[in-house]
Amino acid sequence: MKPVHVIGAGMTRFGVLDDGIMELIGSASMSAMESASAVGESFDHIVVSSQNPDEFTGMGHLSTLTADYIGLVPAGASRIESGPSSGSSAFEAGYAMIASGLAELVLVVGAEKMSSVERGVASKILAKMMSYENETRYGATPTGLAAMITRRYMHEFGLTRDELSLIPTKAHSNGAKNPYAHFQKEVTVEKVSNARIVADPLTLYDCCPTSDGAAAVILASETMTKTLGPISESVKVIGVGHGTDYHAVQHRLSLTSFNATIEAARKAFEMADIEPAAIDVCELHDAFSILELVNMEDIGLAKKGHAIELVKEGQTSVDGTLPVNTTGGLKARGHPTGGTGVAQIHDIFMQLTGRAPNGLQVSDPQIGLAHNIGGFGNNMVVTLFANTQ
Amino acid sequence: MKPVHVIGAGMTRFGVLDDGIMELIGSASMSAMESASAVGESFDHIVVSSQNPDEFTGMGHLSTLTADYIGLVPAGASRIESGPSSGSSAFEAGYAMIASGLAELVLVVGAEKMSSVERGVASKILAKMMSYENETRYGATPTGLAAMITRRYMHEFGLTRDELSLIPTKAHSNGAKNPYAHFQKEVTVEKVSNARIVADPLTLYDCCPTSDGAAAVILASETMTKTLGPISESVKVIGVGHGTDYHAVQHRLSLTSFNATIEAARKAFEMADIEPAAIDVCELHDAFSILELVNMEDIGLAKKGHAIELVKEGQTSVDGTLPVNTTGGLKARGHPTGGTGVAQIHDIFMQLTGRAPNGLQVSDPQIGLAHNIGGFGNNMVVTLFANTQ
Repeated sequence: MKPVHVIGAGMTRFGVLDDGIMELIGSASMSAMESASAVGESFDHIVVSSQNPDEFTGMGHLSTLTADYIGLVPAGASRIESGPSSGSSAFEAGYAMIASGLAELVLVVGAEKMSSVERGVASKILAKMMSYENETRYGATPTGLAAMITRRYMHEFGLTRDELSLIPTKAHSNGAKNPYAHFQKEVTVEKVSNARIVADPLTLYDCCPTSDGAAAVILASETMTKTLGPISESVKVIGVGHGTDYHAVQHRLSLTSFNATIEAARKAFEMADIEPAAIDVCELHDAFSILELVNMEDIGLAKKGHAIELVKEGQTSVDGTLPVNTTGGLKARGHPTGGTGVAQIHDIFMQLTGRAPNGLQVSDPQIGLAHNIGGFGNNMVVTLFANTQ
Repeated sequence: MKPVHVIGAGMTRFGVLDDGIMELIGSASMSAMESASAVGESFDHIVVSSQNPDEFTGMGHLSTLTADYIGLVPAGASRIESGPSSGSSAFEAGYAMIASGLAELVLVVGAEKMSSVERGVASKILAKMMSYENETRYGATPTGLAAMITRRYMHEFGLTRDELSLIPTKAHSNGAKNPYAHFQKEVTVEKVSNARIVADPLTLYDCCPTSDGAAAVILASETMTKTLGPISESVKVIGVGHGTDYHAVQHRLSLTSFNATIEAARKAFEMADIEPAAIDVCELHDAFSILELVNMEDIGLAKKGHAIELVKEGQTSVDGTLPVNTTGGLKARGHPTGGTGVAQIHDIFMQLTGRAPNGLQVSDPQIGLAHNIGGFGNNMVVTLFANTQ
């Protein structure tokens, strides 16, 4: 496999924005190209990730549109979709193009524009990632499934409501310092625990928002990395793993563990030839509070049922031994579904190159991990990055 | 780049079918796995191509659904979309995964289920691949643009209506012998030329149908190809090229040539280190009659303005020197948009391994080419294959 580097990254603010999806894609892409000193370079390929632009915005054919909009014609271009893990699936495809030698310079840009439809319509569009036959037609929603998982986790491992509230409290604390975050406001454990119930036991603050936004990264071969340099401002991709699980939650072996994550993490760590203990900073897909704990355990960052202890000890905070979602996670940074996976990698890139927002920089991180969930826990991608300085 | 082989292929009949999209995907995938002796094997990745399942069928998240439906969990899975070239873009992504060493065994399956919505709705869904700002909002349709290109080609090169009718006549003649074709009935030049006008000068027979259908191919590394063998029943991928052009037709330099094809073909031929003259059999994206001529010329199989001469001489027929669309092309085999690119590769695989339908087998072909159009002429993929016997 030829070495692949991330040489630049850019993103828009996440939130309820005025810009349309092409403006978001254009803005994130241009930032990434500027950050990589790649403006005006000839790109071989563009991978666009978006979960459902056709229904969210009425626009299709984002692949060619992006190439045209940002002036990269005649680069090859495709769109990738795997639900909310579309961004990291796109990254995987871009990685493979360079690792194979098929490309030298690739733009990966992920975006979603979710606020142009009413909330009820957005929920119906998002629910298409669930199993109609086993879930949706019986009234199940992503939040309902997350509530069920949370309840079961509480039952199995004794997690309390106030303990769970530490997760979104940390997310908002980080988001408050991230100028790109959807929510830039702190919350308290008391506020989270006592907020309006969305699906018992989940309150409003346990659930990520639907956001507009885009993020982009530039991938380059070793040669192109040295050409555009300095190589010290790049990050090396050392592991990529992707796994699926049965579509419907009810067909899986466990409610409190996602086999797709275990599989994706196993592949990524094997490829990188490192252990979970090597991780210095990570982005985990926390669409609902409970998922941050489940993900930590499935990836091997904490023992089953014990992730909350690391949170309580402050180890997952920015100044802890295992900083998790330092820029606010899906909860506070926001969740434009097709953009999230790329934003996670954007933020890991910024951490490893020492450019995280003020107050959020982890001290000298060497290895970073991003974990992205597609479907309801059935299509996961884990990526691993190493500092090249 | 590690060598990549196509070791099996399968497809459903194309047409207006009773089966839903998952049945179509399952059926094509199982045929491909049987053809590759890969049933029960552990796949690393699945790439699904479909242009717009959400709006055509109301179903989303085809990546995980496919892994679950055909029993390939926990393989990684993504969906790829680039308009009607989605199938070959998916093939390109699958190719890169094996060529990079990230995967050993990959299923690429493309499908579209277009008949579950009314024709007017289908047209609106398909029109999303065009430029709204420059085309759709002024009433342009794919057929309208194809008519404009045809008229211009006639003006520039003196092509006559009856000459153009030779293209669908050949397509239907081949389709009549292909049990998987949407239309299995011959037509005459007279019938084509005098049929109902759809957009002057195009008649009904100049336009491909909207179809239901799926096609699948199995890609394998050299090691896996030898393991599942015999290697003599496989085909080696020798070139992959992908190019884009400006989204709207009016922004391009020429009406009678597609720069995205020129770019994709250039990349593919360079990679394979062969010239267009080496092609023994090819599948060209003939969504409208004129495109077969334009594509032949852009790829370098005929001189500009002279492709029709090869057609008139019978050179593009099954027993000619340059057989084009031997199984009916999009015109007669049909055009389930996300499935077409994979079906083209399926048919080239069958030709190169001597398994084309009765009466359609080209004599001992060594090199095959597939060319797939996305958008209206703005997202092309060219793939090249070599017989390994």
